[in-house]
Amino acid sequence: MTELRIDVVYRLRVAPAQAAHRARLLAIEQSLEMPPEAVADHRVLDEVLAVVDRVEPQADGTSLAHLQLACETVCEDAGQLMNMLFGNCSLQPDVELVDVEVPASLAGAFGGPNLGIAGLRQLTGAAGRPLTCTALKPIGSTVGLLAGLCSTFAGAGIDVIKDDHGWANQRSAPFAERVAACQRVVREANAASGGRTVYAPSLFGTQVQMLRQIELARGHGVAAFLIAPLVCGVATFNALKREHPDLAFIAHPALGGAGRIAPPALLGKLLRLFGADAVIFPNHGGRFTYPAETCQAIARGNRAHWHGLRPSLPVPAGGMSVERVPELKREYGVDSMLLIGGSLLIARERLAERSRAFVEAVAAAGVAA
Amino acid sequence: MTELRIDVVYRLRVAPAQAAHRARLLAIEQSLEMPPEAVADHRVLDEVLAVVDRVEPQADGTSLAHLQLACETVCEDAGQLMNMLFGNCSLQPDVELVDVEVPASLAGAFGGPNLGIAGLRQLTGAAGRPLTCTALKPIGSTVGLLAGLCSTFAGAGIDVIKDDHGWANQRSAPFAERVAACQRVVREANAASGGRTVYAPSLFGTQVQMLRQIELARGHGVAAFLIAPLVCGVATFNALKREHPDLAFIAHPALGGAGRIAPPALLGKLLRLFGADAVIFPNHGGRFTYPAETCQAIARGNRAHWHGLRPSLPVPAGGMSVERVPELKREYGVDSMLLIGGSLLIARERLAERSRAFVEAVAAAGVAA
Repeated sequence: MTELRIDVVYRLRVAPAQAAHRARLLAIEQSLEMPPEAVADHRVLDEVLAVVDRVEPQADGTSLAHLQLACETVCEDAGQLMNMLFGNCSLQPDVELVDVEVPASLAGAFGGPNLGIAGLRQLTGAAGRPLTCTALKPIGSTVGLLAGLCSTFAGAGIDVIKDDHGWANQRSAPFAERVAACQRVVREANAASGGRTVYAPSLFGTQVQMLRQIELARGHGVAAFLIAPLVCGVATFNALKREHPDLAFIAHPALGGAGRIAPPALLGKLLRLFGADAVIFPNHGGRFTYPAETCQAIARGNRAHWHGLRPSLPVPAGGMSVERVPELKREYGVDSMLLIGGSLLIARERLAERSRAFVEAVAAAGVAA
Repeated sequence: MTELRIDVVYRLRVAPAQAAHRARLLAIEQSLEMPPEAVADHRVLDEVLAVVDRVEPQADGTSLAHLQLACETVCEDAGQLMNMLFGNCSLQPDVELVDVEVPASLAGAFGGPNLGIAGLRQLTGAAGRPLTCTALKPIGSTVGLLAGLCSTFAGAGIDVIKDDHGWANQRSAPFAERVAACQRVVREANAASGGRTVYAPSLFGTQVQMLRQIELARGHGVAAFLIAPLVCGVATFNALKREHPDLAFIAHPALGGAGRIAPPALLGKLLRLFGADAVIFPNHGGRFTYPAETCQAIARGNRAHWHGLRPSLPVPAGGMSVERVPELKREYGVDSMLLIGGSLLIARERLAERSRAFVEAVAAAGVAA
């Protein structure tokens, strides 16, 4: 294969003696999808058929297969990259997608984050510490209640207030009304405090609907959005990001599955590649069971030097609390965003106080790496 | 909960003594996503919080949790339905989505298949037997080679010739050129034979790109398309289907994962709900490992009476052969479409003969149910 290629690592759960054969079948499945002996065109066999670079047996009895996929099959389309990486073999339970590396030209085509960590710091004015983030919950609430939460959170100085990812166009708080009210309250609170809290509404539906949502929200001054790329399709996410280079996109992992695409590959790399300025992931010790090393690998992937793409802000989340802020700061350092939702809201009448405690714990000196 | 609700069954892989507690946490995760004790609005607790209807211990040590989700959270958006069904809990490895039932109003909003089985029979003229289907492979081929395959397949009388799902806009055969050439060849072959072979190109990218692809292909007379709803996002798929009520959509299961959403729920029901006229699934005994009962459950879901939605045509695929046609006919009956790809192409210079053998085996009387 002399063409540009994508290096992919798959874990094969087969007997070690079968691994080389299984890797060859996988290479066919993720490229030609037909027996190579039935292919008459030599160019296709030379340049399009995926290549097994090597197969490495692992101590746990699995094998890691290093494959090279032809870049020409991907057409610089994000959905097509997912399709070539894991489309068919997602249906084969003995295969896990572990890692992916793309050539610089493909990285440049997708483009990565619009703002990245530096841009998010500029947007919020947060310097030298992790950013703070919370969520508007629960779905089913009225616009009035959500606006009240925004007022409290912005008054406490939280950097980013995002819609919960379950918000779409529910009748209790339709998108247009919710966004107008929340953004107005945040703007007013910022004017009063001199702060720069950002409100990030949740996008839903199709690309055309999302374009309308973005247009409407921009009209109110919204500069950041929450999006679930696995729900809406990564091609839609990447297109929205490229068409709005001044906007920040916070990626939510909904529908991201568990275990079949390794989280460091999906959340650490692919979502950054497609343009997530910040990547929310389920941190260890919360409502989800990702081990600590998986979470750290996600954060490393978000921030590593990679083809000149801007770094994404890792956002450990999913049942975090103010009490864990010092530990989270030690673990993830200053280039992170700490997301606490329900654990603030449970304070009820003491929400403002609890929100300020969150902000102060993150700002406190001495614990950040 | 007095509102319209969605009945969902999840399998919980926890100790039976923990199952009821785990089900309550799951109900919170898939609705409020925050502690109910922190919710002040009684309407939200009464009408939005998901309800655990019952938890049933299973012989294998797992438990089935029957939950009811509030319809108002879904906003008649297909992506949002996936989000509420499995968005967050896809990240929790102890949960599997087993089954879903929606109220008739929601089924009507999504609308199911445009043409369904009867419409596909009318389109192709195939009566009283399974439909036949093959695929244009491999990616990387030239337009000339693909047009030659179309000529052979249409000449042999195969009902549906679909692009392989790996086709996007590859430079060896860009979409516009590929579709123009393949559709022309199929039209000419139909004119010569009096047949009604249908060519179904593969859609790729975002909704806006797919709308352009559909417009271009319709201009050539294309009436059916291949789409991968899990790659492009189910909201995009459902919107395209609703905006083009005269077109047929064949759903490809790429990126559908394995095991975490039960295939009968995802491929048997949800893809039909969102509008698949035909649903391709990995049949047992091929390159994939779905057991026979799973495949049969998919086919049953595709064709069952369901809120007046048109039935979808089940398409067992993934390494099938002409030799297996009698068995496939016995198993899936006449209301099915048999898809054979690589196993035809391996005949190389005898491709026309092998294609005719496929068509004749499917047409042969006496084995279909």
